[in-house]
Order: sequence, then structure tokens, then C-alpha cells
Amino acid sequence: MKVLAITGGVGGAKLAMGLSQVLSPEEVVFAVNTGDDFEHLGLHISPDIDSLTYALADQNNTELGWGRQGETWQFIETLEALGGESWFRLGDKDLALHIQRTELLKAGANLTEATTRISQKLGVQHRILPMSNDPVRTIVHSDQGPLAFQHYFVRERCQPAVSGFEFAGINSARLNPEIDAWLDQCQGVIICPSNPYVSVDPLLALPNFRARLENLPVVAVSPIVGGLAIKGPAAKMMAELNIPATASAVAAHYAGLLSGFVMDNTDKNEAKQIKIQTITTQTIMVTLADRVSLAKDTLGFLQDL
Amino acid sequence: MKVLAITGGVGGAKLAMGLSQVLSPEEVVFAVNTGDDFEHLGLHISPDIDSLTYALADQNNTELGWGRQGETWQFIETLEALGGESWFRLGDKDLALHIQRTELLKAGANLTEATTRISQKLGVQHRILPMSNDPVRTIVHSDQGPLAFQHYFVRERCQPAVSGFEFAGINSARLNPEIDAWLDQCQGVIICPSNPYVSVDPLLALPNFRARLENLPVVAVSPIVGGLAIKGPAAKMMAELNIPATASAVAAHYAGLLSGFVMDNTDKNEAKQIKIQTITTQTIMVTLADRVSLAKDTLGFLQDL
Repeated sequence: MKVLAITGGVGGAKLAMGLSQVLSPEEVVFAVNTGDDFEHLGLHISPDIDSLTYALADQNNTELGWGRQGETWQFIETLEALGGESWFRLGDKDLALHIQRTELLKAGANLTEATTRISQKLGVQHRILPMSNDPVRTIVHSDQGPLAFQHYFVRERCQPAVSGFEFAGINSARLNPEIDAWLDQCQGVIICPSNPYVSVDPLLALPNFRARLENLPVVAVSPIVGGLAIKGPAAKMMAELNIPATASAVAAHYAGLLSGFVMDNTDKNEAKQIKIQTITTQTIMVTLADRVSLAKDTLGFLQDL
Repeated sequence: MKVLAITGGVGGAKLAMGLSQVLSPEEVVFAVNTGDDFEHLGLHISPDIDSLTYALADQNNTELGWGRQGETWQFIETLEALGGESWFRLGDKDLALHIQRTELLKAGANLTEATTRISQKLGVQHRILPMSNDPVRTIVHSDQGPLAFQHYFVRERCQPAVSGFEFAGINSARLNPEIDAWLDQCQGVIICPSNPYVSVDPLLALPNFRARLENLPVVAVSPIVGGLAIKGPAAKMMAELNIPATASAVAAHYAGLLSGFVMDNTDKNEAKQIKIQTITTQTIMVTLADRVSLAKDTLGFLQDL
């Protein structure tokens, strides 16, 4: 079965990692959010692409829960001492990836080509496709005014209360042609357990992308378990948007798009509120076996739809 | 006594370090070559300014003989693994300086302001002044064609045979106004033991700079000792240019400019070939005491002229 998997950063990348163990590079392609990309210290930084790249390369920093394995911090500590902008904690190894991507882009590569070059150097076999080669920038509207996504997420540590989101550049951004081509031949779509508002919605907001999914079975895996987000500010955002932080609210958010929904066993009493086919399973992924198991459950469900 | 000290990188910085121990920030100002500055990986790199900054901040990497103390190499090793340009070995800490300078320049600071901001953060009290705020780029003409200085110096490890030098941009580069102002009040000039061709000549080639030195006593310290360059390719260059690699040839190179010349005891038999006043002393600087001692000898000589 050929599948498109839609994912944001760390949370979604766990399931993506599981899918990459179960499906070959000819069977699954990853479409990744670039709404939280930004330019910082002269570098083009693509946090979600990098999280997925490190995950698929088995280079995740499991101690920190983000960034690269075996990381050191001499650069950022020195930059801080020199009075530089140090709120975005760039590791010494991670920095090399940003410099290399920026150099490739300056030399004329598009983001897809730069991503492929880098991920292949790290041994990744599967295709990691930025949602678009054109810039899209998520703006978080908050009680502190509009904030660039990384300013909200990292600099302000998600503390401002959100009131809405905007994807600057979305109307002139073209769906990555390689994703478009893959959609012609794939048989189903999985939305990984990523933040619906800031990781998945930027993709869904791309002109024509949603329409391209209409004839395909689409399954989403809930990033909300027992009223909490496994990773990141999804539950906090939902509360601030006056949406109950529940798995069923996630399903409702994707109304009209989904053929099926996967949520954690913890939330099985919500099943009756969800109008589409739903399965419950263990969605919290701690070990590699958990990732593979959820990938298999989700794929089996998608196949049966 | 108020002094202007002209210096390039590592070699000259040793005497500059000695001078900074003997003279207060109100008594000595350092004018630094920027001909070997370059743009690399999107960064503005000023190797001579940085060598002097690290020397005056007591942050020199004494094991390597260049770069910063306590340096690590995670960035450059990772960049190499990613297929990036890794011939210029940027340390993790050193990189922070280049990023911060590049950011300051992008924000509108000139090179002098950026240098001052950074050197002060490192605790440097003395003024380190780039020879110009305008770009000057040394081109090495060689048997491999024209080479940008760092390509010659680092990438090609000084292996090409040189035939001449060119300072691109020199005619439109303005002498740093702060050096110009200091020359109005200073009483003497010391040319540190730096490479005459690629570290000192770029300064001397700046429009009007040489004329500004005419009414001041100028003393040069030979970078050639016993036919060898203490540091760098000066002796090799002299051989390739069919100039004897001797202290007296260095004195001759600066003909018309110098009031006095300082060379090593090793070379005292050359004294008769040198038409200007010359002293011999120990010019090889291994310890801090050596640096201070040569600074004192040179200053005493300058004062007596």
C-alpha cells in the first residue's frame, strides 16, 4: 500500500519513524510542515523537517526530546557571552545542518533538493518532502499580539494565550510538486499525531491540497490523549480557543476530511461522539516497538476502510 | 608615549599582546589588516582581527597556534559529513564570533563598531581597529592563477608559488577614521613582526595612509629570523619572489618608511647592510615575558629615535 504521511515535528515524527520501519521508501512518503520555518542568524531553519530527518536517521536526541544525538553547546554559549541572540538553542552539530541547507539554497537548490541532499547524507532512505518549496510562515495571534511561530514556541515558551493562526504566504505557496505527483499514485493518507493547528493546518491550507485528498481514505491519529498533548502546546491552545482538549475535538477539527480516526485506549469513552470510523489502541510511543505497533495498527485500519 | 601598532594575525599579535601589557588603552591603538577577510558560509570572517582579539583577551589557543582556547570541532566535522565546505576549520566557539559579527554588520554596524562590541564582550580594553571599514581583499597571484587569500593560505596550505599580490578594493577603501584621528595625536608607529606582503602592505597601500606616517618615527620588527619566518609563509614567499629571505630584505622592503628596525640577535651580522638605525634583541616570543620584553625593547628604541 502506498501512503502519504503528513507530519509536523517531534510528536508526528515518532509515528513517521514507525511507518518508515514498516513501509519501504517506495511505499511511504512524508509531507512535512514548513510553517514553522524561519530565518535566524542568517540561517534557514526548518525545525519540523529536521526533527523528521533526525528521527529517520536514528539521530534523535532522546535525552532532550528534540535536536540531535550527542549534541554539544559551545557555539550557543559563546554566542550568548558575546551578546548574541541565543534564545533559540542551536547545538554545534545541528548548526552544521542549518549552515549546509542555507548554503544549498543560496546555490540555487529548492528546499526539497536541499532536504534530500542532507537527509541522504545522514543515511535516510525515505523521501522527506517539505509541504512547499515556497515560504509559508505561521503567525500565532496571541494576547501579546502577533508572534512569529518560533518566537511564540521557543522564545516565549508557548506562554502567550493564543487566539488564532495565520499562515503568511500560503495563498502564493504551491504544493510541493513531488507530493502532488505522489498523490496520483498513493492509496491512503495518514495524519500523524501532530498539532492540528500549527503542524497540520498549514498543509491543509495550501491551495488545492485538501481537494487532492478528497478521493483518498484519510486517517488521523489523535495527538491528544486523556485531555493532554503528548508533546507541545496543542492542549493549551485548545483551551485558549475554547475548544475542549479532547480526542473527539481533534476528530471534529478535521471534519469532512477524515475517513477514519485513531485514538488512545484512554479515550475510548469518546468514541460515541465521533461520527466516523474510529479505532482505539495504544498511541503513546515510548519505545521503537510502540512506534512500529502504532504504525501497523494505523495502516491496517487505513487498509480496511 | 602614544603609539600606533600595525599588525596582521598570529605573529604580529604576539608583540601586540606584549604592547598591551606595557601600554594602557590610552597609549596604544592597534591597526589591523583586513585584506585577508572573506565571506564564507554566509559569514564575514576577519582572521587577523580575531587573532588579535583572542590574543588580547588571553583566549589564544596555544596548542594549535591559532584560533580560540578550549575549542571543539563538532560543527565542522558535522558539516563535512553533510558534504559542506569544510576546508576552513571553524571551531564551535570561534563560529559564534563570526555569526555575531555578521549579525552586527547586517544590523548596520560598521566593522569597527562590530569589532569593538565583540572585543569588549571578551574583556579587551585596548582598541582594535580594522584598517578600513570598507572591503579590501588580498588576491595572491600564483602559479595556480589568482587565489583569494584564504584559498591560498588555508585551502591550498600556501603551496602555490606566489608571483605577486593585489589588494582588490584598495583604491576606494578609506583609512579607518579612528586610525586617522589617532595618528593626529600619536608619537610613533610600530610595525609588528607580521608578513610584510600580505599583512602589512595592505595597510600601507591604503590611500594616504603612508603619507600620514611621514612625520612620525616608524619602527618595524622583523618577522624573519635566521632566514626563516617564525610563523606563516613570509620566507617561502620571499624565495618565490626572488628576494633573499633575510631580515635586511624586510628592512629594504619598508625603505623610505622606517626610522628604525628591530631584528633578532641571530641576524646581527646583517646590521651593516641596513642603512637605518637598527637594534638586535631576542625577537622570538615563546612566553608572555618574551612578548613584554620585546615590547619594552621596541618602545625604548622608538622613544630614543
